[in-house]
Amino acid sequence: MRMMVTLLLLLTLTSPTTAQQVRSRGAWRGPDGLPHIDPARLESSLVTLAAIGRDPATGGMVRTAFSESDLEARRWLMSGLTAAGLTVRVDQAGNIIGRLEGSDPGRGALVLGSHIDTVPQGGRFDGAVGVLTALEVVRSLSDLGLRLRHPIEVVSFTDEEGGLVGSRAWLGALTEADRAKEYDGRTLAEALRGLGLDPTRLDEARRNPSELAAYLEVHIEQGRLLEREGLRIGLVEGIVALDEYEITVRGQANHAGTTRMADRRDPMAAAARMVGEVREQVRRIGGDLVGTVGRIEAHPGAPNVIPAEVRFTVDIRDPSRLVLDGAIEGLQERFARIAVEEGVQVAWRTLQRIPPAPADLRVLQALTEAVTAYGYPHRVMPSGAGHDAQSVAQLAPMGMLFVPSIGGVSHSPAEATRYEDIAMAGDVLLQAVLLLDGRFP
Amino acid sequence: MRMMVTLLLLLTLTSPTTAQQVRSRGAWRGPDGLPHIDPARLESSLVTLAAIGRDPATGGMVRTAFSESDLEARRWLMSGLTAAGLTVRVDQAGNIIGRLEGSDPGRGALVLGSHIDTVPQGGRFDGAVGVLTALEVVRSLSDLGLRLRHPIEVVSFTDEEGGLVGSRAWLGALTEADRAKEYDGRTLAEALRGLGLDPTRLDEARRNPSELAAYLEVHIEQGRLLEREGLRIGLVEGIVALDEYEITVRGQANHAGTTRMADRRDPMAAAARMVGEVREQVRRIGGDLVGTVGRIEAHPGAPNVIPAEVRFTVDIRDPSRLVLDGAIEGLQERFARIAVEEGVQVAWRTLQRIPPAPADLRVLQALTEAVTAYGYPHRVMPSGAGHDAQSVAQLAPMGMLFVPSIGGVSHSPAEATRYEDIAMAGDVLLQAVLLLDGRFP
Repeated sequence: MRMMVTLLLLLTLTSPTTAQQVRSRGAWRGPDGLPHIDPARLESSLVTLAAIGRDPATGGMVRTAFSESDLEARRWLMSGLTAAGLTVRVDQAGNIIGRLEGSDPGRGALVLGSHIDTVPQGGRFDGAVGVLTALEVVRSLSDLGLRLRHPIEVVSFTDEEGGLVGSRAWLGALTEADRAKEYDGRTLAEALRGLGLDPTRLDEARRNPSELAAYLEVHIEQGRLLEREGLRIGLVEGIVALDEYEITVRGQANHAGTTRMADRRDPMAAAARMVGEVREQVRRIGGDLVGTVGRIEAHPGAPNVIPAEVRFTVDIRDPSRLVLDGAIEGLQERFARIAVEEGVQVAWRTLQRIPPAPADLRVLQALTEAVTAYGYPHRVMPSGAGHDAQSVAQLAPMGMLFVPSIGGVSHSPAEATRYEDIAMAGDVLLQAVLLLDGRFP
Repeated sequence: MRMMVTLLLLLTLTSPTTAQQVRSRGAWRGPDGLPHIDPARLESSLVTLAAIGRDPATGGMVRTAFSESDLEARRWLMSGLTAAGLTVRVDQAGNIIGRLEGSDPGRGALVLGSHIDTVPQGGRFDGAVGVLTALEVVRSLSDLGLRLRHPIEVVSFTDEEGGLVGSRAWLGALTEADRAKEYDGRTLAEALRGLGLDPTRLDEARRNPSELAAYLEVHIEQGRLLEREGLRIGLVEGIVALDEYEITVRGQANHAGTTRMADRRDPMAAAARMVGEVREQVRRIGGDLVGTVGRIEAHPGAPNVIPAEVRFTVDIRDPSRLVLDGAIEGLQERFARIAVEEGVQVAWRTLQRIPPAPADLRVLQALTEAVTAYGYPHRVMPSGAGHDAQSVAQLAPMGMLFVPSIGGVSHSPAEATRYEDIAMAGDVLLQAVLLLDGRFP
């Protein structure tokens, strides 16, 4: 039986429009007593959502926050949540929250969620997988006649792609810069007013830690680790610490033809050495550390002028703040030495410094027990990307599951994940919710 | 007497506005019979021209081609040429040509010149030195009662800084791109019409080689070679060959957080190695070869995205086309190897390929004889920068003299050259004209 479902799922991989043909039969229990979500129903939800805001020319999703297609997807999601028996509200940050009360009064909620906005020309899985497995878990609980002791909430956060806007509103952490952000010519306040909200009351979106028992999010990996190791589920040990710097190297602008090589104080030659050093240093330390130079520019930037100044960014991430700080210290030392050797000045400007968000060990334990019970191939791994979970981790014990990204591709029309893998994550999420409902206060 | 002049000149260096106080006494002959231009008169011309289009805030010259201050400077120059006894015309490219007929009919002209336009916030010597030493030579010939066999012309070329526009018009070498160039919102045609010219007759600016016997240009070095060696005059053996390329390195765009170091095909890391290789290769070959990376940019250029593509320019120059070609070949080989090692693609696009313009050996010989006769400290050297002389070299035997740039600075308000050095170049130019007038057909 399971094999037949698998076959059908594989068929739908090559032809997603045939998804409706997969027979939905509701959640079920296996011979071992383990609960399973309904893979066909979950796939059907994903396929339906993927039709909202899809660019017919590229197949890419254009469902940026507050766009027409985002609004349509929000309406679709809210009706789905309501149909699943949840009470739906939209908080003052535009986050959609579907809630089902538990049997014990006064407990914090088990919150499951992610986001449904996309980058322009993004994929159909980033964010959507987390919200719709959450919805599927609630449907499955209902199918199986299970009522939790804790309230359960399914959340779709506002504008994750623009900087975790909705989940940071839960922390009361939105800055003036966030509020000044533009959405297709409108400010955040105007965009929220478009949802019928009162932007002067944005702070009311803030949540109290006592309202939350735990937060769980399923997300695509956006990397190739699981795929390369032939695994289906990643247990996220934490979201990495991230530092972002802008490095300015100042030398002496001069004529490219009349300035002999020995007379130059060339910030480009110095910057090239520093860019090379970023990779050297990161490779030397190894482990999960990654370092990237994504932007570089020279001023004045004429082919026939030795630049006065070269600026580049360094994005560097590691699960451990200690490792990250060590790497930065090493780079600062190396850059300073290069600057002396090259006769240039180097200056560091901090663009971002995001602390690591470790998963809660009890949540990770429940997820591990669940994935082990099903026997789904898995590993523990860090999240190199930021997620709403890193905001909510400041309010509640957090855990995350990853599903493999085919080819590691994301933020692209070519983004893909096997529906079968998403169904596995749904099973694990369902079972972990049951375990946590039993264990958490 | 000479020492007194020198003292006065040194005074004017620190306080150029006192230049009018230096007594002008006309050209003179030394006890050895060598002719000397009038240094005070030359300095006075330079100081007067430097007041036209000077930004009072920075002291920089803003006399870009066809600007109001350029037009004012043109009028001032034309009246000065006329007062010196020259017949002045403006050709259809806007070049100002002052001409004095020689005693022998039918000979080509000895042409002396440069330009009076500047870059925005440029210096007071670049170009002006060449035009005003030429004018001073004509005045000195008159003072000394010398009439040449050849006609003599003093030329100020249009828009040198924008790409040798006027001197290339003499070759009929202006392209559609040159004609489409914008001058403060006006096309070249409109700008020429502003001078009372008929842009449809631009091709009439073309000159026949038979009209020119030789071309001589004095220019500031724009480098530090003369200064560092304590020399006063550079005899230019030729203007370097110049190649300019845009290199595109294509890798694979990816997430800066989720893509492990081993999974990257990072064009930034590859480009950094290539930029380093430019200097390595140029240093290895040595000599007069110079190589510069003046522009670089990454796409998409977000700090948190491994770039898809990095583009940078390579400007590489040498007096010898053979040496230059060898260096380029070496770089192509190295870049290709780096591309293979890094798993990226590399593509070269030629932006410019300017042949070398060697000085005429007979002209160089005359300049050498002249500078040696005066005993002015000098050396033979290449010109790493482009000059109108490289255009005119295609029509006539060409020679150039350099005067030292203090600190090697040019295209800057801080550009400076000692008036005493310019006077020495004036002497050498005057004597070389006399030698060539006797030797050239």
